[in-house]
Amino acid sequence: MSFQYLKPNKSTKFKDRHTTKVDECVSPYEEGMQGDVGLVGLPFSKTSISASLASEAPAAIRKALGSYSTYSGERDKDYQNVSILDFGDVPVHPTDTSETLERLKTSVKEMIDTEACERYIMLGGDHGVSFPSISAFQEKFGRIGVIQWDAHHDLRNIDDGGRTNGTPFRSLIEAGVLKGEDLFQVGIRDFSNAKAYADYATNHGVHAYTMADIDDHGIHFITDQVIQILENKVDCIYLSVDMDAVDQAFAPGCPAIGPGGLTARELLSSVAKAAKNPLVKGMDIVEVDPSKDFRDITSRLAAHVMFRFMYN
Amino acid sequence: MSFQYLKPNKSTKFKDRHTTKVDECVSPYEEGMQGDVGLVGLPFSKTSISASLASEAPAAIRKALGSYSTYSGERDKDYQNVSILDFGDVPVHPTDTSETLERLKTSVKEMIDTEACERYIMLGGDHGVSFPSISAFQEKFGRIGVIQWDAHHDLRNIDDGGRTNGTPFRSLIEAGVLKGEDLFQVGIRDFSNAKAYADYATNHGVHAYTMADIDDHGIHFITDQVIQILENKVDCIYLSVDMDAVDQAFAPGCPAIGPGGLTARELLSSVAKAAKNPLVKGMDIVEVDPSKDFRDITSRLAAHVMFRFMYN
Amino acid sequence: MSFQYLKPNKSTKFKDRHTTKVDECVSPYEEGMQGDVGLVGLPFSKTSISASLASEAPAAIRKALGSYSTYSGERDKDYQNVSILDFGDVPVHPTDTSETLERLKTSVKEMIDTEACERYIMLGGDHGVSFPSISAFQEKFGRIGVIQWDAHHDLRNIDDGGRTNGTPFRSLIEAGVLKGEDLFQVGIRDFSNAKAYADYATNHGVHAYTMADIDDHGIHFITDQVIQILENKVDCIYLSVDMDAVDQAFAPGCPAIGPGGLTARELLSSVAKAAKNPLVKGMDIVEVDPSKDFRDITSRLAAHVMFRFMYN
Amino acid sequence: MSFQYLKPNKSTKFKDRHTTKVDECVSPYEEGMQGDVGLVGLPFSKTSISASLASEAPAAIRKALGSYSTYSGERDKDYQNVSILDFGDVPVHPTDTSETLERLKTSVKEMIDTEACERYIMLGGDHGVSFPSISAFQEKFGRIGVIQWDAHHDLRNIDDGGRTNGTPFRSLIEAGVLKGEDLFQVGIRDFSNAKAYADYATNHGVHAYTMADIDDHGIHFITDQVIQILENKVDCIYLSVDMDAVDQAFAPGCPAIGPGGLTARELLSSVAKAAKNPLVKGMDIVEVDPSKDFRDITSRLAAHVMFRFMYN
Amino acid sequence: MSFQYLKPNKSTKFKDRHTTKVDECVSPYEEGMQGDVGLVGLPFSKTSISASLASEAPAAIRKALGSYSTYSGERDKDYQNVSILDFGDVPVHPTDTSETLERLKTSVKEMIDTEACERYIMLGGDHGVSFPSISAFQEKFGRIGVIQWDAHHDLRNIDDGGRTNGTPFRSLIEAGVLKGEDLFQVGIRDFSNAKAYADYATNHGVHAYTMADIDDHGIHFITDQVIQILENKVDCIYLSVDMDAVDQAFAPGCPAIGPGGLTARELLSSVAKAAKNPLVKGMDIVEVDPSKDFRDITSRLAAHVMFRFMYN
Amino acid sequence: MSFQYLKPNKSTKFKDRHTTKVDECVSPYEEGMQGDVGLVGLPFSKTSISASLASEAPAAIRKALGSYSTYSGERDKDYQNVSILDFGDVPVHPTDTSETLERLKTSVKEMIDTEACERYIMLGGDHGVSFPSISAFQEKFGRIGVIQWDAHHDLRNIDDGGRTNGTPFRSLIEAGVLKGEDLFQVGIRDFSNAKAYADYATNHGVHAYTMADIDDHGIHFITDQVIQILENKVDCIYLSVDMDAVDQAFAPGCPAIGPGGLTARELLSSVAKAAKNPLVKGMDIVEVDPSKDFRDITSRLAAHVMFRFMYN
Repeated sequence: MSFQYLKPNKSTKFKDRHTTKVDECVSPYEEGMQGDVGLVGLPFSKTSISASLASEAPAAIRKALGSYSTYSGERDKDYQNVSILDFGDVPVHPTDTSETLERLKTSVKEMIDTEACERYIMLGGDHGVSFPSISAFQEKFGRIGVIQWDAHHDLRNIDDGGRTNGTPFRSLIEAGVLKGEDLFQVGIRDFSNAKAYADYATNHGVHAYTMADIDDHGIHFITDQVIQILENKVDCIYLSVDMDAVDQAFAPGCPAIGPGGLTARELLSSVAKAAKNPLVKGMDIVEVDPSKDFRDITSRLAAHVMFRFMYN
Repeated sequence: MSFQYLKPNKSTKFKDRHTTKVDECVSPYEEGMQGDVGLVGLPFSKTSISASLASEAPAAIRKALGSYSTYSGERDKDYQNVSILDFGDVPVHPTDTSETLERLKTSVKEMIDTEACERYIMLGGDHGVSFPSISAFQEKFGRIGVIQWDAHHDLRNIDDGGRTNGTPFRSLIEAGVLKGEDLFQVGIRDFSNAKAYADYATNHGVHAYTMADIDDHGIHFITDQVIQILENKVDCIYLSVDMDAVDQAFAPGCPAIGPGGLTARELLSSVAKAAKNPLVKGMDIVEVDPSKDFRDITSRLAAHVMFRFMYN
Repeated sequence: MSFQYLKPNKSTKFKDRHTTKVDECVSPYEEGMQGDVGLVGLPFSKTSISASLASEAPAAIRKALGSYSTYSGERDKDYQNVSILDFGDVPVHPTDTSETLERLKTSVKEMIDTEACERYIMLGGDHGVSFPSISAFQEKFGRIGVIQWDAHHDLRNIDDGGRTNGTPFRSLIEAGVLKGEDLFQVGIRDFSNAKAYADYATNHGVHAYTMADIDDHGIHFITDQVIQILENKVDCIYLSVDMDAVDQAFAPGCPAIGPGGLTARELLSSVAKAAKNPLVKGMDIVEVDPSKDFRDITSRLAAHVMFRFMYN
Repeated sequence: MSFQYLKPNKSTKFKDRHTTKVDECVSPYEEGMQGDVGLVGLPFSKTSISASLASEAPAAIRKALGSYSTYSGERDKDYQNVSILDFGDVPVHPTDTSETLERLKTSVKEMIDTEACERYIMLGGDHGVSFPSISAFQEKFGRIGVIQWDAHHDLRNIDDGGRTNGTPFRSLIEAGVLKGEDLFQVGIRDFSNAKAYADYATNHGVHAYTMADIDDHGIHFITDQVIQILENKVDCIYLSVDMDAVDQAFAPGCPAIGPGGLTARELLSSVAKAAKNPLVKGMDIVEVDPSKDFRDITSRLAAHVMFRFMYN
Repeated sequence: MSFQYLKPNKSTKFKDRHTTKVDECVSPYEEGMQGDVGLVGLPFSKTSISASLASEAPAAIRKALGSYSTYSGERDKDYQNVSILDFGDVPVHPTDTSETLERLKTSVKEMIDTEACERYIMLGGDHGVSFPSISAFQEKFGRIGVIQWDAHHDLRNIDDGGRTNGTPFRSLIEAGVLKGEDLFQVGIRDFSNAKAYADYATNHGVHAYTMADIDDHGIHFITDQVIQILENKVDCIYLSVDMDAVDQAFAPGCPAIGPGGLTARELLSSVAKAAKNPLVKGMDIVEVDPSKDFRDITSRLAAHVMFRFMYN
Repeated sequence: MSFQYLKPNKSTKFKDRHTTKVDECVSPYEEGMQGDVGLVGLPFSKTSISASLASEAPAAIRKALGSYSTYSGERDKDYQNVSILDFGDVPVHPTDTSETLERLKTSVKEMIDTEACERYIMLGGDHGVSFPSISAFQEKFGRIGVIQWDAHHDLRNIDDGGRTNGTPFRSLIEAGVLKGEDLFQVGIRDFSNAKAYADYATNHGVHAYTMADIDDHGIHFITDQVIQILENKVDCIYLSVDMDAVDQAFAPGCPAIGPGGLTARELLSSVAKAAKNPLVKGMDIVEVDPSKDFRDITSRLAAHVMFRFMYN
């Protein structure tokens, strides 16, 4: 077109010629494309026990990508060539939960079946979306190990409310998708769980690291240990990042906030360390509720979790 | 007890001996009690098309009752003897919508079957709760007329998403619970509906009054007319107050806000006029989302809607 | 000084040479000065029944003066020559209420005893400050008539909590400062008062106009009537503007908000009409809590109440 | 693609098959397209006298289009076939104001030179953008009449700060683009202007209608009168809607808010009436600052101003 | 009752059968009851120097208890059998400060005189409530040692404003209730105190640990040291937790916030360590103003302070 | 005057006779005055790339001074005799950026030319103000060394947008005002910069310390190192504190926030250490946007940065 300045349908945000913002590396997936990281939104939080609009997180986190660039000065490396293929959001059904869970699993499976990318990021939603997502990964990749950053076990019984956001890992274990011994929980917090579920963890061989463990041994030591154990027995590793593992001062937008959690730096370096392992194929980020957040602080932190996962 | 000041389990809010706050007239229902107005919470908004925490409204509206007194100076009448029996909130199921709809209907039916009160107030929740609630009233009282204050027809098709908060009146008509001709919609707003649903209304004899109708004829004239038609053909009248009938300046806490709606005074006087009719047995107040509100302005207005209904 | 641009201790806000902002007409009072309107802050709200930071209102309202100019296009008149003498805020005692009430009365009295101005504006604080303020005016000017815009009678008994913000007019009547028949209450709202106090008003000859009266007769008619009665029997008229007379949509920052009150335009035109009477010597504006407000909407409205009072 | 649910790059917002949201009628302009309404963003507010982020309004108003549908029940007419061509936002220069003003004018001119549409909507930005925008329209269409809804004259002198958002109409008159007698200002408010600029208006034949005029004659009468005068002498009419013409209760997100302005209904019906005239070719909407708004109330009202302009 | 789902007057919050929320362990005290921890609200903040609604904290902190469970995974111990007896809130007098202080002391004394519990928690209010509360404990238990987490000395003179929230510990020392040498202040911050009061502390043997001390020696070392000294000379230890000891990032809802304070983890572990000592009989938590907080972050932290005190 | 309590034009904030608030040490500069620290506001942020109201920071930071006292308990030293001379705010031009930059430089130069103080503090504004400010210092004091706390290099090219807030240090280097080797950047963060600018830094000898460097060596070590190098080669040291060097949890009010930055304590102790060096003559504090902040947390932190600079 012959306009001097107008570019309909193009962003007119200020562009510095030397800076690549992360969102500039995102393209909508089209059939046959190959890229580095696949991205899909699972905007579903109607299974949350308490009222949650975590369904709005995929949009908020994607938007946060535009505030940061692809360059790491610490490693003097520009990741502008890491291409992100965006598979969009899975459409949820307004009233039929089973239908939605089916759509989530099918869609994650179809995405990874494209084999378009090395790795995939799933943006929840509440933690309930990890059940269909991890199920899809297990079908594709075989025996799966999971590292879960979380204040909570998420091993609740299903009789009291169905597949809520408190149940995904129990559902996975009971469905035979995930062995208890292949599940590592990091950041479990006092006064945020029930004894019955801690016992369930123990009885099923789940490895749970509390905040006291982290205070005593350091997040780096624990992360190393987890990876070391996992890499020898599973076919693929899946990271599940419940942002409420982080202290309420650093992640004020989670539905279930509280004091005494990880700092932002602890989470970021732990995810970075885990993501270095080549068995890692997927990561979900859940329990960010933008409607409760302040200045998208929690979504911005989630974006940095993505960077540590993608840029390794 | 022999404490001079402490009264465990009693409110210690400042009490003026001559003032009765509305919440002082509320008692939890116990078997065999008789009262004037039954109150029940239907804290369910997971069927909302857009993200909604209208589930938090019953608590917010009940709390607002404590900010106002029972005395009307305009009529020089104190309604402190109007007793309100609170049947509590219907427990919703975290993940099973059908189960919840069944619980809502059963509970409203059981409440009115107690015959403890002359009239009942149902606090939503989103507008989806009117389907089970009105169904229960119809079973109890026979042919039912409904006056619906609303910016929207809420006559959407069910194929596109099940029983969302956009469908209750269509569901009622198609279930044979409510005749189209017995439904009166007041406050229908431009650019907030689809032609297909306006046509559906026309084809099924639904009476829809737009904001232009109200501008032309006045809310009083329209309310009178509605009541006059209804009182001759139905056994019972049910008021369904979707707070988004009100302009966003006066009800900023509704999920679907917009300009050009009713003023607070228009809604209050219209409800008051309708509520004078002895056929009126029930009223629901829906689509208040306290998490989106400012200083509970919308819940306070909802409380006044209750006063106009109860104190006639 | 020889700086080109710097002017230490001067505002560097943008100045249009032809525009006079109202705050430019305010000078701190110095002994011997003469002006048009005296202004004093009564930043006290510790006597409020419910938690209130109305003590912060004098600062917020003064600041709002800087957003508006002195020119009325409707009358094509510039009031830039109306000088406002600011007597500052009365220092309150952090813990001794009686001491503070004494300071308030003494200070208002000393201010009007300067005879520096024709008229005075007192910025509350909660409505409790009207007791000392009106007492001071009565001592100075003799028999006093009061027009009170308010949703509430403020005629509560004193036994239940001392001189709270619910009691000022009862205190004044019982102290013999104000005759019941000389008190006119405009905007009294349903479900905001107790029958005992409406009866007290009736028994003491207080004239109370409800919102229904205003709907029926119009605010102009009522204001005219009030002035007409008052001007024949009192020595001086005092306006007491409790901002909660205004609907919560137009004055969201009052501690005791609710629907169904005056519009902003109704309050402004009523105050303007009353203020035209030469017997009017003082006005207080109370019950603005800036900490609860949105964008100082209520303080801005209060500033306009001042304009209607000063620019007549 | 063979995905069952995923549609990369497509919205997965819930879609009711019978409802057309306004944003579904918007397409990015491509060369050669024909449509009904052209839309362009002028996201510039660095010339504002007081700090303003009105630059964020085009995005917020476009987003608000997605909350409303194309159907008017009052006229039983669906406007789903009114196509909106979006020319994008004019890229602003971060530091060079003259350059930006040049880009704005050039871009508006280039847009209307496409002759792709009957009418055009310009989304500011502060009111400063009306200077380049109206200049472009005048070049294209000849003698231009302007109806300006505004609390302020916007006729300030340029010596005190250059082409700020207080100066556009003076700049236009002095540049010979607009005759004073062809400018109609509706909603001019007391204590919001300077005498010098009211005098300038008078001396240059500008027609200014104050809020008192509107109270006395009604917004409909005034709008009719304006149109009647204008249609006989100009080649084209341009509507300039400064949202601060509206009362702060209805448009809380304008930088310069205050009480005593138009209601939302008054503005909407006035714009609708004016927009019926076939000489009307363009409209700008300015002075919406989303960062100061509550729940995008002001952007939603702006969206409805668009509907009244487009759907006639 | 024969309702299927309704349980009037019972919470219908989702209940997982294996999880005990802390609020489920709270019962209103009735005569003769025995429990583990007594709880009383002291909702008084009218003596605050700066405007404060800390009076609203008891309600906010009690509500926060419902967000957390009784189980500590770090110790694998469920504290569901620790019973909390709630003595309610002390009713404050709206205007009479001395009367309120008397009520506070009497009520705390009467509570501990029931000997119903081993330990008691007092929820302020501002720090002024520690004067009556500690006085009551001293009367009951004899020589009292106090550990005060606080950014401020709270040793101000009383002549400048009476018993404000800046004076409690001076009042206690001067009343002979508390010896200076038995008072330990932890977290004293730079630029938050006056030299005169630091000198007063020194002269009266008060032990003050600054943030630099904590940086140098660690919070654990300091807490141990304090306890060691205290346990040998007093009859009872009282913990006084002014939440503004914590950095503004972790406790944003205190009236007097600032940077450079304790982290949440530091406070929690310090309180936990101190609370292990059997001489500890009481704890107050003060200076939480919920009206200034974000998402009740400060009240949530206060709840965790309670857990560390109760669950030892 | 003979008023008992009123003190027109004086603050009536509560005053404790023994406490000196920092704002009590501030006097507007008058010709010939001598003091310790000069203070000037540079309220300009129109050159920000993203929308910013950092122009409001000087007012917010000055106000924060009133919340803190002059006494350091850690050093047992009262700094009440450190006098602060306030030169006011440089008036900015509403539309002419070059004019404003000229005014900023001239005014800073004129201020330091008074030689009224040992040291000066400049309160931005966005980081663009460091260009004129440092230029003025260099003219006055000769070869200048700069320590810049910042997440960003601020070495962008000028062709893409002129002298934005991303360019000041490049502008300084290219103007020959500052040698690359004399610039030390502390807190440079990953994913917040472009490789081209990191390369520019390297190529021009700029010393950049990333967050990884700080994690590895500690902020104290790095600060010491910087000072050691600088003090041997420059005539004067200038501190430039971009508050976004701090993690978003501790400085939520910066325009460009993100996780993984300095803690508040790290920034404060680093500035304190640097400020001890007698070559340090000036400091600017930039990129605080009060309109985006929560409870002025970021302005309060900025005030403490001032204390660490002034009270050494």
